[in-house]
Amino acid sequence: MKHFSSIETEFLSARDVATIVRRQGIAESLRGMADYIHADYLRWQDFDKNARVASHSEIGVIELMPIADARTYAFKYVNGHPSNNRLGLPTVMAFGALANVDTGVPLLLSELTLTTAIRTAAMSAVAARALARPDSVCMALIGNGAQSEFQALAFHHLLGIREIRLFDSDRQATAKLIANLQHTGVRLVRCASIAEAVRGADIVTTVTADKTNATIITPDMIEPGMHINGVGGDCPGKTELHPDVLRGASVFVEYEPQTRIEGDLQQMGADFAVTEMWQVLQGQSPGRAAREQVTVFDSVGFALEDYSALRFMRDCARRFGIGQKLALIPDLADPKDLFGLIRPLAHAAVRDPVAAAAASSAEEMALA
Amino acid sequence: MKHFSSIETEFLSARDVATIVRRQGIAESLRGMADYIHADYLRWQDFDKNARVASHSEIGVIELMPIADARTYAFKYVNGHPSNNRLGLPTVMAFGALANVDTGVPLLLSELTLTTAIRTAAMSAVAARALARPDSVCMALIGNGAQSEFQALAFHHLLGIREIRLFDSDRQATAKLIANLQHTGVRLVRCASIAEAVRGADIVTTVTADKTNATIITPDMIEPGMHINGVGGDCPGKTELHPDVLRGASVFVEYEPQTRIEGDLQQMGADFAVTEMWQVLQGQSPGRAAREQVTVFDSVGFALEDYSALRFMRDCARRFGIGQKLALIPDLADPKDLFGLIRPLAHAAVRDPVAAAAASSAEEMALA
Repeated sequence: MKHFSSIETEFLSARDVATIVRRQGIAESLRGMADYIHADYLRWQDFDKNARVASHSEIGVIELMPIADARTYAFKYVNGHPSNNRLGLPTVMAFGALANVDTGVPLLLSELTLTTAIRTAAMSAVAARALARPDSVCMALIGNGAQSEFQALAFHHLLGIREIRLFDSDRQATAKLIANLQHTGVRLVRCASIAEAVRGADIVTTVTADKTNATIITPDMIEPGMHINGVGGDCPGKTELHPDVLRGASVFVEYEPQTRIEGDLQQMGADFAVTEMWQVLQGQSPGRAAREQVTVFDSVGFALEDYSALRFMRDCARRFGIGQKLALIPDLADPKDLFGLIRPLAHAAVRDPVAAAAASSAEEMALA
Repeated sequence: MKHFSSIETEFLSARDVATIVRRQGIAESLRGMADYIHADYLRWQDFDKNARVASHSEIGVIELMPIADARTYAFKYVNGHPSNNRLGLPTVMAFGALANVDTGVPLLLSELTLTTAIRTAAMSAVAARALARPDSVCMALIGNGAQSEFQALAFHHLLGIREIRLFDSDRQATAKLIANLQHTGVRLVRCASIAEAVRGADIVTTVTADKTNATIITPDMIEPGMHINGVGGDCPGKTELHPDVLRGASVFVEYEPQTRIEGDLQQMGADFAVTEMWQVLQGQSPGRAAREQVTVFDSVGFALEDYSALRFMRDCARRFGIGQKLALIPDLADPKDLFGLIRPLAHAAVRDPVAAAAASSAEEMALA
């Protein structure tokens, strides 16, 4: 095996991605990620799209999210296990890959746990730039868990949100968020109830983790002109918005076939009208049409955003010279000679096998 | 980042798997793999099954193959690009993972290029043990590319095949096979045509790579009692057997919904009857019922076999002490504090964030 060689795949560990984000700063990371996502939504038609493939158990879900354009294939592995926190594990963990469509060679394997939090928040900001009132300054943030700081900073840096009103049934989660964001220039207001947090907010972000049909937001809380950024209703049996909130609003989604299964939209009939975000971003549909209109972005997370996220982190890693090489695929001297990798040494000693075996057609090679 | 820690995932590189196979020998590797596959087929009902998710381009396909039982989730990434050989790349490359269903934690990431060749050959042998005549001694092997030696040795070691009749339109491929297997005790016969190779064979294995509707095997070649192990017809538009070969035989498949799309079966109407291999292996259906019967195993490769393969290689790696650790998932001190991974150092200096922020409800934390 002296000469074993591999087709090298770039590898970004969780630590590598954390290093990238710390070096360029979270604001630049969110901004760059939003730019990549926005750019890819502008060429929505270039992608071969599928609803993700989910494997459900009683306490969680594991999903694969593939997508491809003519040049690059991407997929993400991601789980959702709300009970993981009790075991000291993250609720959501992820990794994924980019591959060359023309050859199938995997080009990049990367962590996507940290990356997914950044891409989800960046996507929320991309949607809100088209859907929220441009003069929005105050956001309610319901659910102060692992993704909450990313949402808070995306809306601060990309939309100019200056005040965030916080609620979580776990007071420690809110305290953690406040500690993490206390020097960021955002005014943080801790509230005693969801209703108190939502009252007077321009934007309402829900990012709760329970795998239940919850009603975090009810119609009585809704005020004219609000934008609801619904992030935590993202799995069959896991919703956050009362159906009447959807009925009273214009609802925007990433990829309709997937959101009908997974989003808060799962509560509505098949004829309930929604608009896909690419139509808004490409200027084919209006986003917010009136100041008093209530808008909902029923976010579930779509594979296109992971394609963008992998592309973005790969480009950042190259700029900073971060990352390793992974020997995932064998490099064969003769691509038809996979067996050569494991040929016993005695046999491998045969120097010129082709010449040795170039006998005439149908001649018996009695090699017993 | 001094204290950055990760949830470690076992990693097996292409080189690691080659080392495992060389250490225990290819015969034992094929036998062990067949045992794992057979054992998992005996509990077919325990698995949550899906047809794989394919992304087709003009010159190839990239697929994801997920499967899970109550404890373990597995998936494989695999491509199929017949034109890769012209670029010096393998036609088929693969990698995959095992994960814990209860938490979503990825337990193992492994190369699957070499592993897939072993698992495909082992599955062919598992099927043939139930479908071929027990006194089979001679096999035709049509297609002498990357997978051919594995098929040859699986049938030699697991079924007692002593003579293999070879044909490939690429004479160099056949020469390579003969060189690789010349000391294995198998009698190798090079033939001038497919018909010549097939004549008198007990088993016919087809493992060609062209992504076309080929007719490698035609009805005139079929003799009573033959078993056809059709491996290379495994993708929409990629078949090897003339439809009348299927009409004149009893056809066995891995997972019917997938084989109807991908197998030689794609040429037949939806009412063409087939039997799933688990029914045979569990004794619910007869395999071969009569000596003169012609049987076809329309192999496409099913995710269950990759689940078995990953499990087998993980167990071998542990026995030999082979493998590495991959830092794919961050290990968080507080699972709700993902942001802690990237908190700027100045903020991280706050020692006891919870106490610092434990202010009263609805009290403004004016932190601007």
